[in-house]
Amino acid sequence: MQYPEAIAKLIESYSKLPGIGRKSATRLAFYTLGMSDDDVENFTKNLAASKSDLTFCRICGFITSKTDDPCVICTDPSRDQSKIFVIENSQDEMAIENTHDYHGLYHVLNGVLSPMEGRGPEDINITSLITRLADHPEIKEVIIGLDASTEGEATTLYLGRLIRPSGIKVTRLARGLSMGTNVDYADQLTLTQAVNGRTEL
Amino acid sequence: MQYPEAIAKLIESYSKLPGIGRKSATRLAFYTLGMSDDDVENFTKNLAASKSDLTFCRICGFITSKTDDPCVICTDPSRDQSKIFVIENSQDEMAIENTHDYHGLYHVLNGVLSPMEGRGPEDINITSLITRLADHPEIKEVIIGLDASTEGEATTLYLGRLIRPSGIKVTRLARGLSMGTNVDYADQLTLTQAVNGRTEL
Repeated sequence: MQYPEAIAKLIESYSKLPGIGRKSATRLAFYTLGMSDDDVENFTKNLAASKSDLTFCRICGFITSKTDDPCVICTDPSRDQSKIFVIENSQDEMAIENTHDYHGLYHVLNGVLSPMEGRGPEDINITSLITRLADHPEIKEVIIGLDASTEGEATTLYLGRLIRPSGIKVTRLARGLSMGTNVDYADQLTLTQAVNGRTEL
Repeated sequence: MQYPEAIAKLIESYSKLPGIGRKSATRLAFYTLGMSDDDVENFTKNLAASKSDLTFCRICGFITSKTDDPCVICTDPSRDQSKIFVIENSQDEMAIENTHDYHGLYHVLNGVLSPMEGRGPEDINITSLITRLADHPEIKEVIIGLDASTEGEATTLYLGRLIRPSGIKVTRLARGLSMGTNVDYADQLTLTQAVNGRTEL
């Protein structure tokens, strides 16, 4: 026996989302049936709008509405034009903005190098970064803020080698203990990096 | 700083789904941006169709398309008309159908009694069950197959008390060890029920 077509197809659509298996998709589909008409209508509108209204900023790669391209940060003259923060995706940019502590510009790679997934330098926003650095001599520092993972590490080293010859200062995020970590619970590598990167009191 | 409106709204919609918090909703929204136009279009169509094309079978309460009401099981003359399997929701019916071992009819309560959530007998399909039993003297057995939870248990006892006076046989699913359970890992209640309900070899 099969579910009626309309629900079977909705289960299909939900199970295409990442981290949502058949069981969860079925649960979500039945939950949808119980949602208010307004909520479902908004959901469909918002899904459609996400494809039609959004684009990646033509300068920095941040997600932006098509009516705001270049994005609000790239067009904000009050931002420090001498620094570029290189991150993997728009969510990372949002996390850094939420610290309210950085006032420079960004460059969103929209990916990291990953030989395993067949993603090379030409598949992420590296060329546009290099062109941007060449066109804007006012840029004095590139801060690389990629994930502390193997792929993030490889991409960081690659970018460092690529940018350093131009004479621009290249920095990376500090490694050490996260807030709240107990020294005896920290993993070996983190502890080694915290010792090597110790700062004067 | 805020995300562009289109993505913020999509995050909002995703986070209305059960078990999906702000972080997961953000992840799903960004994943949606990377989905093919076709997939997103199908998703929106399927969402809309789930509201417009589906209904609950007017006889048994199973989810069915509006063009198939009463549902395929209620209108199938080859099903055993003397048995009614009472379950909580359409997913449960699907699980039982997938065993290919039951050939009678169903009655979907679409809920269980829950004083905690303020759900009483009039909020679930109990009246329609009682009417159905009164109208169809060919029904000889009602099998109650609700979850082995406090609420499922309370609803089972309630239904038993309600139906038994009519002389119809009322049965419930067996309690005992699930397949693959080790005796020493089974909880006390399950083990007690398995001992009390022991069957002759």
